[in-house]
Amino acid sequence: MEFFRDGDVLFMRFSDGDDLLGCMKQALASQGVRSGVVVCGVGMLKSPQLAFYTGKGVYQPIPMDEEVELAALNGNVATVDGEIFIHLHATVGRKSGEAMGGHFSGGKVHMTAEVAVRVLNKAMIRALDAKTGLRTLRFQ
Amino acid sequence: MEFFRDGDVLFMRFSDGDDLLGCMKQALASQGVRSGVVVCGVGMLKSPQLAFYTGKGVYQPIPMDEEVELAALNGNVATVDGEIFIHLHATVGRKSGEAMGGHFSGGKVHMTAEVAVRVLNKAMIRALDAKTGLRTLRFQ
Amino acid sequence: MEFFRDGDVLFMRFSDGDDLLGCMKQALASQGVRSGVVVCGVGMLKSPQLAFYTGKGVYQPIPMDEEVELAALNGNVATVDGEIFIHLHATVGRKSGEAMGGHFSGGKVHMTAEVAVRVLNKAMIRALDAKTGLRTLRFQ
Repeated sequence: MEFFRDGDVLFMRFSDGDDLLGCMKQALASQGVRSGVVVCGVGMLKSPQLAFYTGKGVYQPIPMDEEVELAALNGNVATVDGEIFIHLHATVGRKSGEAMGGHFSGGKVHMTAEVAVRVLNKAMIRALDAKTGLRTLRFQ
Repeated sequence: MEFFRDGDVLFMRFSDGDDLLGCMKQALASQGVRSGVVVCGVGMLKSPQLAFYTGKGVYQPIPMDEEVELAALNGNVATVDGEIFIHLHATVGRKSGEAMGGHFSGGKVHMTAEVAVRVLNKAMIRALDAKTGLRTLRFQ
Repeated sequence: MEFFRDGDVLFMRFSDGDDLLGCMKQALASQGVRSGVVVCGVGMLKSPQLAFYTGKGVYQPIPMDEEVELAALNGNVATVDGEIFIHLHATVGRKSGEAMGGHFSGGKVHMTAEVAVRVLNKAMIRALDAKTGLRTLRFQ
């Protein structure tokens, strides 16, 4: 992983085998970034853990044991109990071109991946919402 | 709906049942934002109204009577006849993980949704273009 | 094609028949932008050249001889041997709503397309990486 900060943008490049969420968290922490918007992500992933939220805190996994193009990455950076928490949704393209999409629970980079975060100054925290079973965003 | 402004970013969080376009428009109006880029959107939608443009002003609806993950949201904010107009394209993921994509004509939030807009200073207006039947962007 | 610069954002609108990569490169060059993040892209494309990277420098084409909605566009701007190089991944929606995604090798705009780039000050260059066969990003 390599990254640089350009004003309010944190740009990261990941290498083959990098754990996407773990490495992003490391880059964000090293820059003291605890709030932001994931505005872009391209590259490839291997066996990404996509999931569909069925309620009551349950994410139903979408099995994908293959290498895929990362076509789009949307999400944001907040904190949960003081820890950086990255919420990502990914759109990936199979070898056939067929796209799959959903909540991104984790996965490793295949070949390379390039991700940009727009850093925010205002804190965002996530706290459990009884109604949805989700840790929804709150603005302090 | 809750939202905050952080410099040139307007960050919005929507709640279950919120009308996405209507609430976005309300947040933008309250902040006096009439021009911008939709850089990110994640969460879930219920029965989103996706559509495919077939020309001559006709958007052919893509029937989707289900809850879906909002995998990506791209678009922009301009004005039509002085009114805020939000142009959105959505990528959504079904329970199977299969992704669907197209013009987003409207729909309600399921559980929660998080959207970020990069505010622009320069005005963008949409006016009817006879050739395409679309209200295309013009820069003043 | 029309475009304007609003601080660190370059906003472009393309017309029917425009070569997306060629016109973007022209707009970037005219503004002296050689580094950036593609944060948003919507509109339509005709017969987009999507591809899946199979390694050793080979992009396997995904045949699509049709008009599609451009649902999402992610990517970045860097230089290769001093020339502007745009790396894009696209998610497109077919008439049926089915989404396809992958590396975007090129294609023409159908009707219209609207793309925004967040300009970066720091230079990014691409250089061949022997391991992946890709021109991966380096930060100077």
